[in-house]
Amino acid sequence: MAQNIYDNSAFFEGYSQFPRSREGLTGAPEWPALRAMLPSLAGKRVLDLGCGFGAFCRFAVGEGAAEVLGIDLSEKMLAEAATRGPGLPIRYERGDLEHLDLGGEQFDVVFSSLAVHYVADFDRLVRTIRRALVSDGAFVFSTEHPLYAVRAEPEFDGDGAFRLKDYLVEGERTSDWVVNGVIKHHRVISTMIRTLLSSGFSLTDIEEWGPSDALIAAQPDYIEHRVRPMFLLVAARAEPK
Amino acid sequence: MAQNIYDNSAFFEGYSQFPRSREGLTGAPEWPALRAMLPSLAGKRVLDLGCGFGAFCRFAVGEGAAEVLGIDLSEKMLAEAATRGPGLPIRYERGDLEHLDLGGEQFDVVFSSLAVHYVADFDRLVRTIRRALVSDGAFVFSTEHPLYAVRAEPEFDGDGAFRLKDYLVEGERTSDWVVNGVIKHHRVISTMIRTLLSSGFSLTDIEEWGPSDALIAAQPDYIEHRVRPMFLLVAARAEPK
Repeated sequence: MAQNIYDNSAFFEGYSQFPRSREGLTGAPEWPALRAMLPSLAGKRVLDLGCGFGAFCRFAVGEGAAEVLGIDLSEKMLAEAATRGPGLPIRYERGDLEHLDLGGEQFDVVFSSLAVHYVADFDRLVRTIRRALVSDGAFVFSTEHPLYAVRAEPEFDGDGAFRLKDYLVEGERTSDWVVNGVIKHHRVISTMIRTLLSSGFSLTDIEEWGPSDALIAAQPDYIEHRVRPMFLLVAARAEPK
Repeated sequence: MAQNIYDNSAFFEGYSQFPRSREGLTGAPEWPALRAMLPSLAGKRVLDLGCGFGAFCRFAVGEGAAEVLGIDLSEKMLAEAATRGPGLPIRYERGDLEHLDLGGEQFDVVFSSLAVHYVADFDRLVRTIRRALVSDGAFVFSTEHPLYAVRAEPEFDGDGAFRLKDYLVEGERTSDWVVNGVIKHHRVISTMIRTLLSSGFSLTDIEEWGPSDALIAAQPDYIEHRVRPMFLLVAARAEPK
């Protein structure tokens, strides 16, 4: 199974302090760009893979989704998600994206925010998602940009340059982020796209997300995201079988 | 117009010594991967943008193409191309990809090897190519990978790391490559894909090309291409209008 780092108490405590954890979608600077890739959710069956505290699930309810299912590996996150939206028509289920099994359930939209880089077998996951989508259904996801995931530690030199190594060497990276020993999986953009294309998807949009000048002015640390992007946003459409 | 560096005598002399200049397609290590993205050329009308010494045009004739047009900005390269394939049914024309005008001519396949990074207005070029392609026609091209084009000079530190800066800052770069002052245009992968998708293409394949272990064993310098790729290969299909 994928590493369940979010149930590590120290990790959970640290992660819970991030703006995106406290504030939900508005605390995530890439959210407006990701939202722009989504179709209308009104009346749709929506699945969120790696739902965390449930911010997107609550958004989907607000947009009029017909059904919302959130899946996460972390019991702590699912418990917190339930307290944030009491009474909302959201199903939360525990599940490992590495071994995802959706039975025969069908969805119109599958969403995933910053979760697929924890999965070693991206091929299997994408094929599982395709089977769970109706024809012309949407798969919209964000992931760590390979220029972020490639190095176990972000390494900048004294001149502000990112010390890139082994970009084309895909595979596991063990990084110290919030706590020591967080396991991620590095794969390049073309690998992800080829997996989508060979699994019954067409690519409809992609963005190597970068901060606006206004964001950098307000939060100067974001300049790092311009040197080497942290987020990759992708939208794909399920081709008729 | 785009800079015509290939007609600079010192550049032309230097470039002419490269394996890909002397040996043609077999001197280009990325060629097998790019060739695999091409449809059959038999009976097709084929256009090569930035044809250089005409290696691909001669390949297309050998594959049974019905018509082959090669366009390049460099008079020196076109003159050399003509001497390499005397009597072959290839039209060579001088043209600037920055201001490409194909009249109403229609093609089944448009190919371009390592030329589009010299073009500032990629949007205009892609729209021009789409207009010149029949429905379901193929546009297959290679370009400098943004991780190569991003820096005016390839900069590696003493530890073999590539000192990446300003990845998301697109635009002109002036590099010293063969001669001083070669002008290229840096754009990221997602920008190129979005341009294709918004110009009437669907993406059919993409590869951030890297060297095999065998190539690195034979030519150890190629390890740099694994640290940060030099070539991006892309295949797109013209969607019916």
